[in-house]
Amino acid sequence: MGKSEEVVLLNYWPSPYGMRAMIALAEKGVQYEYVSVDVVNNKTQLLLQMNPVHKKVPVLIHNGSPVCESLVIVQYIDELWAGDAKPVFLPSDPYQRAQARFWAHYIDEIFEFGRKIWIKTGEEVEKGKKELVDSLKLMESQLGDKPYFGGEELGYVDIALVPYYSWFYTYEQFGNISIEAECPKLVDWAKRCMKKESVNKALPDPVKVHDFVVMLRKKFGVDS
Amino acid sequence: MGKSEEVVLLNYWPSPYGMRAMIALAEKGVQYEYVSVDVVNNKTQLLLQMNPVHKKVPVLIHNGSPVCESLVIVQYIDELWAGDAKPVFLPSDPYQRAQARFWAHYIDEIFEFGRKIWIKTGEEVEKGKKELVDSLKLMESQLGDKPYFGGEELGYVDIALVPYYSWFYTYEQFGNISIEAECPKLVDWAKRCMKKESVNKALPDPVKVHDFVVMLRKKFGVDS
Repeated sequence: MGKSEEVVLLNYWPSPYGMRAMIALAEKGVQYEYVSVDVVNNKTQLLLQMNPVHKKVPVLIHNGSPVCESLVIVQYIDELWAGDAKPVFLPSDPYQRAQARFWAHYIDEIFEFGRKIWIKTGEEVEKGKKELVDSLKLMESQLGDKPYFGGEELGYVDIALVPYYSWFYTYEQFGNISIEAECPKLVDWAKRCMKKESVNKALPDPVKVHDFVVMLRKKFGVDS
Repeated sequence: MGKSEEVVLLNYWPSPYGMRAMIALAEKGVQYEYVSVDVVNNKTQLLLQMNPVHKKVPVLIHNGSPVCESLVIVQYIDELWAGDAKPVFLPSDPYQRAQARFWAHYIDEIFEFGRKIWIKTGEEVEKGKKELVDSLKLMESQLGDKPYFGGEELGYVDIALVPYYSWFYTYEQFGNISIEAECPKLVDWAKRCMKKESVNKALPDPVKVHDFVVMLRKKFGVDS
């Protein structure tokens, strides 16, 4: 990376989408400035200027130019910081690459399933629980006996999915479920990922995430 | 393309997502077998087998292996059938490629805005109308004075967006709006795209789409 390169990440720590960008940057060894934006209470001018369409984190600002949407950011990082024996996230085979993109897209839906568990009440919570567990079981079957979704190394699908691991405790607490009992191999995989510094440093303490969600529920009046 | 290659597209004609795949295949000059699946009334065994996760069209089946999700399919087609002076959908510059991916992802939201207009009632219809027109104006501003979103040639964003043009008449009828009056340059762009055989052959008659939606509304009990 040339000295003139300036990389900034706008992020808010509980965002699983932001964690994806952090893991990708760390895996590639990219130095960057981390700028925290409290998107719940205070969307900054910089955020509104850099992501006027969605007004969300994460935003990667590379030499002043913004890239938005976490999966777009991860692909950008993969394509830009290539070579020099750097890790590669997307498979080189076009068919495998299409499969990785399909699953990463699917994973975006999982967060919405989990969201129902803590933001909704009654039957919708039950629906969210079933959808979450079913989708995690589906991911577990996709993993099979491989150490990572990417095969022998952490790949695009791993980076897309592993941030949710920091939210598992929250789902378990509000849903009264045990994800480890439902999906033991998937939790083994998450623990394997957590041994990597790139993942470990990006994922917050699950209890802190839970406390954050308790605050959100109060704010949104779901504190039933 | 070798003689041994077998390309099948599972599709249902009103699907704007399926139209994307058709345009991409036509632009690349790929011969394929078109298999119609009436996803509203009869999801076939082949569809359930090839897209067990979403059970939706389009599905591209290449030598027996399925690729699902329209934007994943378009990227797969772009990457696989490359070279030989074939058109290229995604820009070669990583930053421009990231921008194209961002906008294609955004375009997926537009269909949901438009959907509100014909599936909802009352205030939700008004909300959908505003969201739809605002989002189309945003796309118009992104187009600027270029002939295509891809620049001088049809690109990834064009392929993602232009199928909606066949749904404009439906939005106009149920929303009592004129998209041409709101976004004249965008409609000019759509007409420019329609001069291409790849686009023209993929997009159904807007009146036929409207009749299809009238049927859907009856089926879903929205016939207010």
